Amino acid sequence: MEKLRAGIIGASGYAGEELVRLLTRHPQVELTCATSRTYAGQPIGSVFPRYRECQVRFMEPQADALVREADIVFSATPNGICCAMAQELLDLGLKIIDISADFRIHDRAVWEKYYKQEHKAPQLLAEAVYGLPEIHREQIRRARLVANPGCYPTSILLPATALLRAGLVRTDGIESVSLSGVTGAGRKVDLQYIFPECNESIRPYGVTGHRHLPEIEQELALAAGVPAVTINFIPHLIPVNRGIHSTILLYANDGVNADTALDALHAAYDDEPFVRILNQGELADTKHVTMTNMCEIGVAYDARTNRIIVSSVIDNITKGAAGQAVQNLNLMAGFEETAGLR
Amino acid sequence: MEKLRAGIIGASGYAGEELVRLLTRHPQVELTCATSRTYAGQPIGSVFPRYRECQVRFMEPQADALVREADIVFSATPNGICCAMAQELLDLGLKIIDISADFRIHDRAVWEKYYKQEHKAPQLLAEAVYGLPEIHREQIRRARLVANPGCYPTSILLPATALLRAGLVRTDGIESVSLSGVTGAGRKVDLQYIFPECNESIRPYGVTGHRHLPEIEQELALAAGVPAVTINFIPHLIPVNRGIHSTILLYANDGVNADTALDALHAAYDDEPFVRILNQGELADTKHVTMTNMCEIGVAYDARTNRIIVSSVIDNITKGAAGQAVQNLNLMAGFEETAGLR
Amino acid sequence: MEKLRAGIIGASGYAGEELVRLLTRHPQVELTCATSRTYAGQPIGSVFPRYRECQVRFMEPQADALVREADIVFSATPNGICCAMAQELLDLGLKIIDISADFRIHDRAVWEKYYKQEHKAPQLLAEAVYGLPEIHREQIRRARLVANPGCYPTSILLPATALLRAGLVRTDGIESVSLSGVTGAGRKVDLQYIFPECNESIRPYGVTGHRHLPEIEQELALAAGVPAVTINFIPHLIPVNRGIHSTILLYANDGVNADTALDALHAAYDDEPFVRILNQGELADTKHVTMTNMCEIGVAYDARTNRIIVSSVIDNITKGAAGQAVQNLNLMAGFEETAGLR
Amino acid sequence: MEKLRAGIIGASGYAGEELVRLLTRHPQVELTCATSRTYAGQPIGSVFPRYRECQVRFMEPQADALVREADIVFSATPNGICCAMAQELLDLGLKIIDISADFRIHDRAVWEKYYKQEHKAPQLLAEAVYGLPEIHREQIRRARLVANPGCYPTSILLPATALLRAGLVRTDGIESVSLSGVTGAGRKVDLQYIFPECNESIRPYGVTGHRHLPEIEQELALAAGVPAVTINFIPHLIPVNRGIHSTILLYANDGVNADTALDALHAAYDDEPFVRILNQGELADTKHVTMTNMCEIGVAYDARTNRIIVSSVIDNITKGAAGQAVQNLNLMAGFEETAGLR
Repeated sequence: MEKLRAGIIGASGYAGEELVRLLTRHPQVELTCATSRTYAGQPIGSVFPRYRECQVRFMEPQADALVREADIVFSATPNGICCAMAQELLDLGLKIIDISADFRIHDRAVWEKYYKQEHKAPQLLAEAVYGLPEIHREQIRRARLVANPGCYPTSILLPATALLRAGLVRTDGIESVSLSGVTGAGRKVDLQYIFPECNESIRPYGVTGHRHLPEIEQELALAAGVPAVTINFIPHLIPVNRGIHSTILLYANDGVNADTALDALHAAYDDEPFVRILNQGELADTKHVTMTNMCEIGVAYDARTNRIIVSSVIDNITKGAAGQAVQNLNLMAGFEETAGLR
Repeated sequence: MEKLRAGIIGASGYAGEELVRLLTRHPQVELTCATSRTYAGQPIGSVFPRYRECQVRFMEPQADALVREADIVFSATPNGICCAMAQELLDLGLKIIDISADFRIHDRAVWEKYYKQEHKAPQLLAEAVYGLPEIHREQIRRARLVANPGCYPTSILLPATALLRAGLVRTDGIESVSLSGVTGAGRKVDLQYIFPECNESIRPYGVTGHRHLPEIEQELALAAGVPAVTINFIPHLIPVNRGIHSTILLYANDGVNADTALDALHAAYDDEPFVRILNQGELADTKHVTMTNMCEIGVAYDARTNRIIVSSVIDNITKGAAGQAVQNLNLMAGFEETAGLR
Repeated sequence: MEKLRAGIIGASGYAGEELVRLLTRHPQVELTCATSRTYAGQPIGSVFPRYRECQVRFMEPQADALVREADIVFSATPNGICCAMAQELLDLGLKIIDISADFRIHDRAVWEKYYKQEHKAPQLLAEAVYGLPEIHREQIRRARLVANPGCYPTSILLPATALLRAGLVRTDGIESVSLSGVTGAGRKVDLQYIFPECNESIRPYGVTGHRHLPEIEQELALAAGVPAVTINFIPHLIPVNRGIHSTILLYANDGVNADTALDALHAAYDDEPFVRILNQGELADTKHVTMTNMCEIGVAYDARTNRIIVSSVIDNITKGAAGQAVQNLNLMAGFEETAGLR
Repeated sequence: MEKLRAGIIGASGYAGEELVRLLTRHPQVELTCATSRTYAGQPIGSVFPRYRECQVRFMEPQADALVREADIVFSATPNGICCAMAQELLDLGLKIIDISADFRIHDRAVWEKYYKQEHKAPQLLAEAVYGLPEIHREQIRRARLVANPGCYPTSILLPATALLRAGLVRTDGIESVSLSGVTGAGRKVDLQYIFPECNESIRPYGVTGHRHLPEIEQELALAAGVPAVTINFIPHLIPVNRGIHSTILLYANDGVNADTALDALHAAYDDEPFVRILNQGELADTKHVTMTNMCEIGVAYDARTNRIIVSSVIDNITKGAAGQAVQNLNLMAGFEETAGLR
């Protein structure tokens, strides 16, 4: 059987590295090309020594070359790059899974406000599908252009949308305090991310307007069937390499408690290969999911404050980026959804 | 000048070790004795090699010996031990700073519910002073028995009580998501605390009824001048040795924003040697306070949700335990409050 | 095709957990049983939440039950357990891959000296094969009983035996300073391994008579074709979860330098799927091999001291324990050697 | 009593930060100025939030301003900067403690070879004193220009020179495998030092010609009374913030063992406030010395290989840089040697 040929645009970051890991062991996909302006000409293994056995070399990001080499491309570039290339690549027949934020927000004005630039392909916003397979599976199967969700949003949306859709929680007063490992900042050379500045440090950042906020609110509103949902989303940087933990507080509707919430989560996700619902009394731990595509969810209920407390973990680079992107590829290509991901 | 003679009951844990560090460099205090059933007879340095130069040996915890050796004792034992000895020690003329939780809760029934045992000295609960100097300084000066606050509560109460006393925030809907280093669990041999189980792990615990909850609520109510305050307090374990970060969400009263909140914090704490208020736009980082007795507080305001977001950090072993205990000793002994703590 | 049925004796440690990871994705093997006295009756996922989807339950370690369930067993028990069961299991027709040290040393007296107990199956010592596939592949294929090498020895023996066999280095003056992550100490509840005692700590241990010393010297002597080789082996504990780095110093024979040494390593290992030889000037890094079965080797030469300096890394739990054990299983079962290990 | 006025040239790195910590609590010294081209005009606390209470502002590094503000200066700049300013500063009457490497090597040609640049003040090389107080105390007392030792050299020289001076070990075959925390690389923005590249990583570097090599060999030869000593020095990067561990192997002369070696170390260092000799069977641990000016030394002897194995730890930023610099200041100013350092 001929394999699907996949390429990576902007492959020299951590999401790119994870794509190399996942694609080189995928039974139905061949990684055929990877671009990097910085490392063009060098083999992938020279940048990521774990993958020295991989024969692919970085090349310049040129549309014609990509079309020759690949049937589908992942874009793992900084924000604002993919939207500049997307129309051309689609016109040439490529499918795109964009791991950056360029196509996640349906409302152009919101995107431009949060990302502080003009959008270069607003005509594609209506077509792009928000690539959270557990929620938008059918649209993803039919999509040419998938906007892979952010890492924080994935950890929040999987539990929160299920509770909202089941009508168990209120749409106001939702809060997520989220904790991320340092790969979440990207493979970025910046003083604040050198080891001694992160190790033995716990710190919040972007507490009132993080870029992941609008996509979380967009999807929560969609799930709740209301025009808008407003939340507090408070991210923190934690000295681990990989993993996100989100503690999400939601007000329970009448008669709802931990059991009710767990029942709804089981109903939503028991058939899902990449969502694990914990038992009553159990809370999630990032170390149970690192290097996997799994989202693990625990629930508690505080009757004193009527709060459903959700504990949700993913690996920010796998389910939060490259793993979910491969899950999307599997759907778009008609493969088994778990192919290459167990 | 003759030095004040200080002893430590239960000195073999992390708070005990920190007391050794602080007391051996305190200009007006001499560490004269330290008890440990496990290590009785051994020099302190055999358990804490950093302090091999310290000549004190662990001894059995006997009241008569303590009274011979010390004028004041710190008790850093597990909960339920200090209350069994306190009356006898006080009757013999010793002053006590109890780092355990035995005397923090005024309401015996609440204490017994959360600590799951009968209180052994309920007659002392009315006399014991909650040892947060920035709030109860004058009572501490006159106290024989000080209940040193918990680590999480210290990080939460310093900012939250100032905002409540200034009338800037509502008493309902308060939430603290708190993150602690692993020394917070004590020097405890338990599978969940071995290195590979904590490193590269982020996890919440005790999310609906942590033992520190009642002392936080007791002091918040006191500050707000209301009979009771109910909060969500959600602790997490983070792979750092030392440091607590609390992200506290409070609803702003009309007209309140980050500036107003910062003004109130400055008014409350600008003369305090161990509280640092950050500028607008700055958030706290545990690495700025580890190994110090400082509490660092930053504030943001989210107009969309009307939430004051407080970022507060301490070193859980210093300001959260032994450092604050020495600060209390300084007050009780009439020393400069910062003696031995800079 | 019917799968080979594999069992794990003593499955509740880190090597057991890694075997679960590797065997549940192995295309030709089914994990059918796992023993643990402590957790008997519980599902594997209750101890290792990453593997909640695994249906196997821990059972008591009884020979008859094992024989009913499995064709081959891995033994990942403490030292001295496997040798007490091995004869019975072999007699019942099971093949054994022992991850403990019970069968690694051919000389019973040496084993008893280092492991401080009487050996319970000395009659099997002659039959047991030291399971380093790159060196003893053919004997492993035919073996009933394989002694899986220690983690430190694997990192040292792969480079050092190749240089000795090629006659490039002297047999005297060999030294290995080795650095291990904390999983190397096992899933052991001991004060010295709790997070705050390991984090921000670097320390050597067992510097003159570590238990891995005799198996290293045995295999070095075998490779050199001499009766005995004596080395310094100096292990250190490092605050990482996984990974061993060995810095090995060997005296170069006349005319030997880094190029010569690299040529010999390439000649020895270019066809090996799990050994990677770095280029001149490159040194190994544990993060390139964690969670893989790879050994990465770099070489430098110091002309001033005539020392070949080898930098060798493995994941102590994979190539240093469970991964190598699966590699051995593949050989014993006639599977592709890399099956389940990429 | 008027305090000695001290300045710091190049104060924005980790050694600079540690100098701020130590000098602001030194009873006889006042920190009056600190230079940084990058941060000139900003208060120290804006770069090092731990020290927000410090009133000093960074200024440009100009000789006339320094002379107005200070009696003595620490230079913590990159290599090659201090030697360009030193003559002018000395001529203006300032004393200098240079924490960079500019004046550590007596032989200009060796310095220029290892530091790959021309030396800008060779005329001062004969005057500069190698600032290891335990070895060169009397010269330091009289010096105008002290070359503060490197971090690795300090950890190696304290034990090794004592054994050499006592004639207990051979001058050939000395090897030091040294492990450093990441602050050892400086406050440097470089991809290889960002958190995810260092965490869960163990790696050697500079194994055949590290810049600290010539100063180690220079001082070993001096101690041994021989023209030259050649060693292997093999540094590694370890994921801790602070701390260096050196494992040093030396060949014992006839009749020498661990006891003999320990006796010599006790004889050399029992009166030293910053050297701690461990008991037989004990090995050093970086966590016993971090944030202190202490060097802790343990010794073992392997009779099989006739190797004295020394385990030596310091805090690379304190005894390995800023703490030792303050110790040197104390000597140069006639203060108690331990002032400000306990």
